Amino acid sequence: MKMLIIYTYPHHKSLNFAFLQNVINGSKQNPNIKEVQVLDLYDEGFNPILVFNEQKRRRDMHTDPAIEKYRQQLTWADKIVFIYPMWWGRPPAMLLGYIDQLFASNFAYKDKKGLFPEGLLKGKSVVCVSTMKGPTHYPFLWLNNAHKTLMKRALFNFVGIKKVKFFEFGSMESPKGKQKKKLEKIYKYFSKLDH
Amino acid sequence: MKMLIIYTYPHHKSLNFAFLQNVINGSKQNPNIKEVQVLDLYDEGFNPILVFNEQKRRRDMHTDPAIEKYRQQLTWADKIVFIYPMWWGRPPAMLLGYIDQLFASNFAYKDKKGLFPEGLLKGKSVVCVSTMKGPTHYPFLWLNNAHKTLMKRALFNFVGIKKVKFFEFGSMESPKGKQKKKLEKIYKYFSKLDH
Repeated sequence: MKMLIIYTYPHHKSLNFAFLQNVINGSKQNPNIKEVQVLDLYDEGFNPILVFNEQKRRRDMHTDPAIEKYRQQLTWADKIVFIYPMWWGRPPAMLLGYIDQLFASNFAYKDKKGLFPEGLLKGKSVVCVSTMKGPTHYPFLWLNNAHKTLMKRALFNFVGIKKVKFFEFGSMESPKGKQKKKLEKIYKYFSKLDH
Repeated sequence: MKMLIIYTYPHHKSLNFAFLQNVINGSKQNPNIKEVQVLDLYDEGFNPILVFNEQKRRRDMHTDPAIEKYRQQLTWADKIVFIYPMWWGRPPAMLLGYIDQLFASNFAYKDKKGLFPEGLLKGKSVVCVSTMKGPTHYPFLWLNNAHKTLMKRALFNFVGIKKVKFFEFGSMESPKGKQKKKLEKIYKYFSKLDH
């Protein structure tokens, strides 16, 4: 299995960076994972602004040479792991800007007649590891699971990715957040997963 | 009433731009609206990337001089109108990057003991005008209203804004989308609203 980790956090001295390390280190112990690539969107200086106009048409976005290398990474990967904090109940603008541009029509999906398109990323799987300041049950109870619904139904299922696993870790700025236990959980998950 | 319109669309030859014009023109007819300011995030060249690290701490974001003028706009406004397309069931990264930076603690809200903070933008109201390619009932039926839930509960209510009105216009790339009728609806709404 080839794994692409897309990491979105501005500061390396952080719990998010510790999660990234545990994903990488766990994966290194896993004989099912042959290769790992990391895309650190902040370190990369990724430009999250999707622009289109009369010169640069949106319908051509799937061939935009400026982001060709990122399309190649997505095509290469069997499993895509997203690591990010939850800001306002959803991922940071930086990650959503990556999605705005990379998940283009005729690359990630193909319009057909009817409501749903053909997903061109089918066969791949996704894991989302997210951290929040608020308690773990906040997005579920108060936000009606909106984050998962948007990521799973509006994005991943739409492009053909059916297998989506979420880890939402709450109370991450609290001494009662069990950070160490959650880091170990992630290490173990990645050291053992088999597909 | 003082009204701030925050407009997020890369291309001025567009239906979103027509909605912007109708919001402005309707507001000009309305004696209850004394002043209108427009912030066009793309034209403005707004940088949507929230950065923090050891030199630039997140806790100081509410005093960041680089975005002082945008804080002043928000403070000035009684009503904030957002105009944007729906991409992947939510606003474009550009607008969410504005939110990541502007809705900072000690400017938009103040942490207190307990789950919910004190909203520092209380008393203001919000209107969201959004357009989508898919049918109007798609976000409601298929996405469980996730867009409204995130905008209303995770963002606006959190900073003390209780009055939030949504216009979600679907089928906007279809000849059956009743675009003209929807543009008129927006014109009329803004020409008559009284608080």
